[in-house]
Amino acid sequence: MIETPYLLFLGDAPDQLAAKVARGIRDWRPDNCVGQFRLEGCKADVGLPDMTLADAKAAGAKTVVIGVANRGGVISQAWKRVLVEALEEGFDLASGLHNLLRDEEDLAAVARATGRSLHDVRIPSVKYPIANGEPRTGKRCLAVGTDCSVGKMYTSLAMDAEMKARGLKSSFRATGQTGILITGEGIPLDAVIADFMAGAVEWLTPDNDPDHWDMIEGQGSLFHVSYSGVTMALIHGGAPDALILSHEPTRSHMRGLPGYTLPSLETLRDTALPLARIANPKCEVVGISVNTAAMSEDEALSYIGETEKRMGLPTCDPFRQGAGKLCDALSSI
Amino acid sequence: MIETPYLLFLGDAPDQLAAKVARGIRDWRPDNCVGQFRLEGCKADVGLPDMTLADAKAAGAKTVVIGVANRGGVISQAWKRVLVEALEEGFDLASGLHNLLRDEEDLAAVARATGRSLHDVRIPSVKYPIANGEPRTGKRCLAVGTDCSVGKMYTSLAMDAEMKARGLKSSFRATGQTGILITGEGIPLDAVIADFMAGAVEWLTPDNDPDHWDMIEGQGSLFHVSYSGVTMALIHGGAPDALILSHEPTRSHMRGLPGYTLPSLETLRDTALPLARIANPKCEVVGISVNTAAMSEDEALSYIGETEKRMGLPTCDPFRQGAGKLCDALSSI
Repeated sequence: MIETPYLLFLGDAPDQLAAKVARGIRDWRPDNCVGQFRLEGCKADVGLPDMTLADAKAAGAKTVVIGVANRGGVISQAWKRVLVEALEEGFDLASGLHNLLRDEEDLAAVARATGRSLHDVRIPSVKYPIANGEPRTGKRCLAVGTDCSVGKMYTSLAMDAEMKARGLKSSFRATGQTGILITGEGIPLDAVIADFMAGAVEWLTPDNDPDHWDMIEGQGSLFHVSYSGVTMALIHGGAPDALILSHEPTRSHMRGLPGYTLPSLETLRDTALPLARIANPKCEVVGISVNTAAMSEDEALSYIGETEKRMGLPTCDPFRQGAGKLCDALSSI
Repeated sequence: MIETPYLLFLGDAPDQLAAKVARGIRDWRPDNCVGQFRLEGCKADVGLPDMTLADAKAAGAKTVVIGVANRGGVISQAWKRVLVEALEEGFDLASGLHNLLRDEEDLAAVARATGRSLHDVRIPSVKYPIANGEPRTGKRCLAVGTDCSVGKMYTSLAMDAEMKARGLKSSFRATGQTGILITGEGIPLDAVIADFMAGAVEWLTPDNDPDHWDMIEGQGSLFHVSYSGVTMALIHGGAPDALILSHEPTRSHMRGLPGYTLPSLETLRDTALPLARIANPKCEVVGISVNTAAMSEDEALSYIGETEKRMGLPTCDPFRQGAGKLCDALSSI
């Protein structure tokens, strides 16, 4: 568990996109952020107050989160100076970078000397059990996609936010690096050893109040041959009561697989639901989330309306329109 | 790759079952075995000549394979004396034990000093790629089960043996510890990091001659919630042209999951085939293997006959009857 609140380190991000992890944290957990730290030449801005380390300390920040992708997989000397100083001033560091903080000898040495923590969220920090498949109390919702990167995480985050706004019990359960940095905890499922994947998801979503919903972050797709095993483990470890089908309508082929077309929403439904019912016979498909980021307002509304009619399921773009419809659909489960 | 031929170390096995890895190697790769090594009190016998280390050396053995489960997860001092001497006499060691040879400081030190290899086949030794989903030349056959441990490995080994007996091109592709020790190579799929599972299976089954068959060792079951993600990765990474449905008719619930019943062969067929066709649209279910070890001859023949009629697919117990029928079925693919 990563201590909050955070100071978001944007470094020398060359553009807004490079700081999308920081943007995600700002969008979904604004109360966890006291400010942003930018180096000279930084072209990103997530709209938080610019702070020095001392400002952030005074504002109560506990952890400096690297909210930016590093160029060429190297943690530069310019970053290092700030990160070392942060450790010395009593901050922990958290990162989802491919190259690990713990593998940087200077950072590791300072962290040891100062007693601070380096959180590399790509690496599991828990010895997960093998899944036992036993029913748990409480309810669980999982977004499954026609492809990778179609908006499953944003769907679950938007549903969690809407449930909380309604005063209902809900937890977003992170299963990937960005999700973990947003919430401060979770499992890096893609880095878990094969035999323990489903057990890790069970561990993440334990017994809870009967009216509590876990909004489980989806990963991959049953139809994406590189990662379908990870998705399968989420479906069987999560044992969801409710599935949301997630889709991005403008994509011409599966992400990274030029030879593979996306399945229809009907095929996704008919594939995912029987598999989910192995672990939870009461599972239902309750709604559809469409990522319309690449569409105009008119196109988006038209696509959503047509899809809702065709599929007979509540359909929306939860980021563009809010997740009210999808949360309404949970009330019957 | 583990160097052959082997001397099979049976240690102080308390019964035949404890030496089932040695038995598997003897049954399926007799040409890889020069003899067996037994300590005083050993109750197992795989029917090979008893040899000292010196005998085995003279017979050309390169590797001492631990073909027995150790009691209580401890490599005993009695074993250690033999294993250290083996390293000193120039043998490599190979093991599928849960506790690793490399973690035994005395063995590791002697191996370093003598330049010998310690093969712990539970641990991946290769940095596998992420699956790219591209079609490969050659053909692939995968056994998928209604449950774990229903005879998938024996089915693939029996089919491989039958193909070779017919002079056809075939390779058994090991994906588990026993399979790797039997053949000397393969991937320990259950120990691979989630994101690389399907890529590991692609790596294991590369381009080959158009008339060559990879007989891929199956793992887990799509219906076993603890391990279904591993099975899914095998289906999409292996991209099989042919599926064999594997079943054990006397089992009352899924292995280790008392609350879960086994699916029917029809349900297995209707679940596995559409998933396999995502990666290989030409995939077909070609036959059924039944593990009848717990049935009398009459019961077995009757069950096999009824199943063949009901499912309309060639059906046999490949260990009891040979895999001829299943190999015949491949000829139309």
